[in-house]
Amino acid sequence: MSSKSFYALIAGVGPGTGRSVALRFAQKYPVVLLARRPESYESTLADVQKAGGKAIGVSADVGDAASLKKAFETINKELPNSQLAAAIYNVGSGGFAKKPFLELTENDLNASIDGSIRAFFNFAQATIPHLLEAVPNSHYPPTLILTGATASIKGSAQFSTFAAGKWGQRAMHQSLAREFGPKGVHIAHAVIDGIIDIPRTKQWAANDGVEDGKISPDAIAEAYWNLHTQHRSAFTQEIDIRPYVEKW
Amino acid sequence: MSSKSFYALIAGVGPGTGRSVALRFAQKYPVVLLARRPESYESTLADVQKAGGKAIGVSADVGDAASLKKAFETINKELPNSQLAAAIYNVGSGGFAKKPFLELTENDLNASIDGSIRAFFNFAQATIPHLLEAVPNSHYPPTLILTGATASIKGSAQFSTFAAGKWGQRAMHQSLAREFGPKGVHIAHAVIDGIIDIPRTKQWAANDGVEDGKISPDAIAEAYWNLHTQHRSAFTQEIDIRPYVEKW
Amino acid sequence: MSSKSFYALIAGVGPGTGRSVALRFAQKYPVVLLARRPESYESTLADVQKAGGKAIGVSADVGDAASLKKAFETINKELPNSQLAAAIYNVGSGGFAKKPFLELTENDLNASIDGSIRAFFNFAQATIPHLLEAVPNSHYPPTLILTGATASIKGSAQFSTFAAGKWGQRAMHQSLAREFGPKGVHIAHAVIDGIIDIPRTKQWAANDGVEDGKISPDAIAEAYWNLHTQHRSAFTQEIDIRPYVEKW
Amino acid sequence: MSSKSFYALIAGVGPGTGRSVALRFAQKYPVVLLARRPESYESTLADVQKAGGKAIGVSADVGDAASLKKAFETINKELPNSQLAAAIYNVGSGGFAKKPFLELTENDLNASIDGSIRAFFNFAQATIPHLLEAVPNSHYPPTLILTGATASIKGSAQFSTFAAGKWGQRAMHQSLAREFGPKGVHIAHAVIDGIIDIPRTKQWAANDGVEDGKISPDAIAEAYWNLHTQHRSAFTQEIDIRPYVEKW
Repeated sequence: MSSKSFYALIAGVGPGTGRSVALRFAQKYPVVLLARRPESYESTLADVQKAGGKAIGVSADVGDAASLKKAFETINKELPNSQLAAAIYNVGSGGFAKKPFLELTENDLNASIDGSIRAFFNFAQATIPHLLEAVPNSHYPPTLILTGATASIKGSAQFSTFAAGKWGQRAMHQSLAREFGPKGVHIAHAVIDGIIDIPRTKQWAANDGVEDGKISPDAIAEAYWNLHTQHRSAFTQEIDIRPYVEKW
Repeated sequence: MSSKSFYALIAGVGPGTGRSVALRFAQKYPVVLLARRPESYESTLADVQKAGGKAIGVSADVGDAASLKKAFETINKELPNSQLAAAIYNVGSGGFAKKPFLELTENDLNASIDGSIRAFFNFAQATIPHLLEAVPNSHYPPTLILTGATASIKGSAQFSTFAAGKWGQRAMHQSLAREFGPKGVHIAHAVIDGIIDIPRTKQWAANDGVEDGKISPDAIAEAYWNLHTQHRSAFTQEIDIRPYVEKW
Repeated sequence: MSSKSFYALIAGVGPGTGRSVALRFAQKYPVVLLARRPESYESTLADVQKAGGKAIGVSADVGDAASLKKAFETINKELPNSQLAAAIYNVGSGGFAKKPFLELTENDLNASIDGSIRAFFNFAQATIPHLLEAVPNSHYPPTLILTGATASIKGSAQFSTFAAGKWGQRAMHQSLAREFGPKGVHIAHAVIDGIIDIPRTKQWAANDGVEDGKISPDAIAEAYWNLHTQHRSAFTQEIDIRPYVEKW
Repeated sequence: MSSKSFYALIAGVGPGTGRSVALRFAQKYPVVLLARRPESYESTLADVQKAGGKAIGVSADVGDAASLKKAFETINKELPNSQLAAAIYNVGSGGFAKKPFLELTENDLNASIDGSIRAFFNFAQATIPHLLEAVPNSHYPPTLILTGATASIKGSAQFSTFAAGKWGQRAMHQSLAREFGPKGVHIAHAVIDGIIDIPRTKQWAANDGVEDGKISPDAIAEAYWNLHTQHRSAFTQEIDIRPYVEKW
């Protein structure tokens, strides 16, 4: 089967990593951009099209199984006879909160659990069957990539709920790698250990303002593409990504 | 202040680790046994009393902040002028499920999240203020101990939701250690990497049935007591516990 | 400065990973093949030349500082005005030994220490000054890549001396990443967690003989190339590589 | 067999952790103090005797197999019919060096390798046969305890050779735990993650001079005793020890 009958699905497509990933994967596949509201994917959609790629925006809530199911119906209509080559989970973790533990509320906890664990659970349950279907046909092993963070590997002081969500997400991901790797699906995790250079972080100090002290989202996208194209005899399950000047 | 004005609180007091911990800590403190229903703590209560210790049973749901608040009101009435020397979180993780990922339901996920992350969050928020209060007076640094499992450090295939909960719990715990250690509260985690030798596991095979191939709950209790009595200049945040014959 | 004034240096160039790495990097750079004896690099040299690349073989002992110094003098003569873009340390660890601990000899220990720690120490001391020199000019950040193994992250029973050497090597590498990353040199480690599909392992069982159950050396080479070409704002320090069917 | 036919062996018995360990284990066993020169063990020897314990000083070089063999001959003469209940490896790592990598010499590397890996290798090879012999008779599982450091788990910048030695030591230790645990010998590692409060560190700043900001060596000794007395169904392989105010 030729490569044109595959597509990539990206959840979390704001003007940062998601946009770069969309542009990178659109060099090879039509890309489906998932976001709750059209205004979240519209600018990336336009950028992909301007770059000569094919992109489709679909409004869906990754935290809601029914909404994802409906999204795939839409995708199947828009891209008939296409299979899922890559699913990128890059949804911002709603539960980010730096707070003394005793000031955290149940809402803070829920935001992290729902944003990091529950939404990824739903996304993985919705996408893995499609990835499995693509195994016999796809040129590159069908791939599920998860964007992690420093908090995925370290429970720092005052990040208790956020870290709980990110560690939970990473645990689930590791379990999926062990279950679905042998079935030919590549499950990969990127620990983004630094501040990404996106509009939202423009004013943030990072590494004393040194050049390239924030992570280029295009560089992340390139790393994701490299993960996707790995041979199945040589899967990487986890990479770290950080600026050369980062303390760690 | 003398040691008789302190008490230990144990959540999860069935006839296994919880019972052994209650008996061990009752050699020094009155122990408060928390369980949803009296029938869960009654036999341990009787055992402590038979051994000459003081025990109080309190019915409460550790997953419910209001219920825990009420439990502390009861404790304050029963043990006036007493401070919390040690809180042991040994609640069985309701979310244990070994299942292919695509067969897991939202209920499985919720059971793990609620049992491992949410309940521990509530327990920690309810107990830490009491532990902080005891810092200036207690002989041993006030201590919060969490019972972890193999799934707290490894995301095995088919344990995706369970591992997500246990990793989330461990992340939260590690964050608390960094936040409350400097305030004098000892936050300690025990990774129980093997099958505990309790009534419920009598029929389980473990390490080919070799003698002492399952973990003695009394030995766990001794390790917890040793954690509790550590000097604040030498806190241990995490230990592993496994049978000598365990593969790991 | 144009890309033609850079070269890659590969230590460990037998007919496996080293050969594949040489072929991959030779698509962009002249490659220098280091080995103790010419017969170790000759076939790879011929393969690179047949593929249209430029290769130079240099006889040197990576475990010997003086020998490496002399090797660089030879390189400077053969490739005048060229700078070191990438140094790949892929030397087989002479100290591989699976033995009960009490049967291990001092020779086993020395073989592992010399092969893994000492030789890498010498190699890193010899190459890093050259990599630092190339920082201002090179298109991709100058890169030092180390080939690791399962034993780099796990001390399995009966692998005590081998694991000691590999962990020691990894520790040194991690320290180098923290020291030289901020100076613009990319220090990257690949944990090869499986059997590589090379002539020497043809008869080895791996993953029940399933297709692609051994790691393709070309896939490793591709991963190394991807590490080398990462942007300095997004360095990966460590990746794992294993067959999709590997148990871990 | 009664407890008086067992002894503990402590290598590294200067006026810090070693002295505290000697005093603690001497409450139960005669202790053998190993050091290169008598002046290194004499003051600890006197302290143990003053406290009513039995101690024997033996001059030996733990890095030299022949010297250790001779030490055991001496021990067998001094303590006939006694078995080894616990061996504590607390030798200061001669290879401590904080230096830019390119300024490190082969001597620095050798000091770390010899002090951390080779000496522990010799010590383990010499003591494990004695520990195995004691398995059927001893009350507590015969125990080999290794003192680790922050550098055993982190390769910080400018600690490349020191970390290489400490990681190597830890790898070897982990392998021994997997090999000899099933044979009844308890192999335990303590990661001492902070500055120990000993004469040599009196002038060192630690945690801004806050009270108990340095680790009490008596507290370490207590932790080691607790490791030694663990039931074989509940071995701990690794603990961390750090001051409550330590950043980590």
